[in-house]
Amino acid sequence: METLSTNACFGGAQHVIRHASEATGTDMTFGLFLPAEAADGPVPLLWFLSGLTCTHENAMTKAGAQGWAAEAGIALCFPDTSPRGPGLVDDEAFDLGQGAGFYVDATEAPWAPHFSMESYVADDLPALLAAHHPVDPERQSATGHSMGGHGALTLALSRPGRYRSASAFAPIGNPTASDWGRRQFAAYLGDPEAGPDASRLLRAGTDLPILTDTGTADQFGDLLGTEALFAAAARAGAAATMRMQPGYDHSYFTVATFMEEHVAFHAGHLHA
Amino acid sequence: METLSTNACFGGAQHVIRHASEATGTDMTFGLFLPAEAADGPVPLLWFLSGLTCTHENAMTKAGAQGWAAEAGIALCFPDTSPRGPGLVDDEAFDLGQGAGFYVDATEAPWAPHFSMESYVADDLPALLAAHHPVDPERQSATGHSMGGHGALTLALSRPGRYRSASAFAPIGNPTASDWGRRQFAAYLGDPEAGPDASRLLRAGTDLPILTDTGTADQFGDLLGTEALFAAAARAGAAATMRMQPGYDHSYFTVATFMEEHVAFHAGHLHA
Repeated sequence: METLSTNACFGGAQHVIRHASEATGTDMTFGLFLPAEAADGPVPLLWFLSGLTCTHENAMTKAGAQGWAAEAGIALCFPDTSPRGPGLVDDEAFDLGQGAGFYVDATEAPWAPHFSMESYVADDLPALLAAHHPVDPERQSATGHSMGGHGALTLALSRPGRYRSASAFAPIGNPTASDWGRRQFAAYLGDPEAGPDASRLLRAGTDLPILTDTGTADQFGDLLGTEALFAAAARAGAAATMRMQPGYDHSYFTVATFMEEHVAFHAGHLHA
Repeated sequence: METLSTNACFGGAQHVIRHASEATGTDMTFGLFLPAEAADGPVPLLWFLSGLTCTHENAMTKAGAQGWAAEAGIALCFPDTSPRGPGLVDDEAFDLGQGAGFYVDATEAPWAPHFSMESYVADDLPALLAAHHPVDPERQSATGHSMGGHGALTLALSRPGRYRSASAFAPIGNPTASDWGRRQFAAYLGDPEAGPDASRLLRAGTDLPILTDTGTADQFGDLLGTEALFAAAARAGAAATMRMQPGYDHSYFTVATFMEEHVAFHAGHLHA
């Protein structure tokens, strides 16, 4: 494990760390924000899972999350979106392969065994953080953007009790009915229906508190499955706040605009 | 027009007023809360449309709205839910006839012409208030509960520009697909599909800001059409916040719990 950079940030510190991942069998790089309170002991942890084409860096520099996390006394972890590197398999499409892990464990060639982003984000990286950094594994929540919104919702919905709350910005909400999902699940899992789907998981019932924000001007609106996700939330049985935000699009400007409310939402559950 | 009672209330006054309605051809009774600011000139107006079996009195005494309206400097009007009286036609069912006007103008015998609650709430009563009370007809918003949530959403969605915002507690959101809707529209309008339907109106597009709260323990959940309403909101193109509230039911305890946020939501638009 190697700390690539550390920057003072809102009274705490923003680290970028590289480590050898068992899940992916590659080196992986992630961002870790620790608030000032982490000097005194473990703090709650909010995951930010990023979208297609992103690395660990995009949200860390553009989402505006650290200030609100500092105020709430919670850590932030920004994982990468896939294993990556010149020696690793990739696809010409921007939405498959490197930068597009879709938070699943690939079973099919040529993606298995390195493309194991579900195990990486849900098991490997949390274990590393709990062992070596002042974060409290009993107090985790997850958020994310687009493909990362899909990741945050499905990881949390499929692991009852693991995460205290889940939120998402412009999430891919019904991937088994979308080109952002079916093509990737077919490639990684051999079946376009085999991947985790937030709408399906919600319909099965949950007690996970959920918040989502999606813009009415999202240029990828047809791919997100927002209608199915909203309908499923009405049936989930949990506290769900599903918001449409007029005029907002798919960019990080949207993420930054609503970040304060998402951090506050998670902080309320992480500090409860 | 006769003032039946006036009570000091949160620095303003809660009136109950009876008048002869042109829309229904009967005497009608409504509640009107005026905040202290109304002494200095017209104030914005928030309608509260009530649910099945209610009179003007239920929300006025149980919804806890006056305190928040006083703080926001806005008036509240609580109309009755139908024309009523021993001399008027009724049905044995609690959800048809007196106490169950469904905010439509009946065209069919024996309900026409007295059961004209759409005209009453949208035209007749607003004109009376604007003429005789310090409320500003240019600044109206609407909320309501159950059948009244249906009323608030459909009246506002079908009159672009008339209301600045609409909200609802446990609204009947897809009445053309529910026994709370099809039976009444068949009786009043001669066609179960003929009545206004919030889900259909939302799908046609709107720029009306919307907020709804529905409990996961709502004992009438199957009749409300919440799933269709949520799905439609994702397609509406407007600012929509659709919330599921875990453990809450169909009662006024739910309405009271979330009233502060609904009044604040409307006040933000009424004072914009």
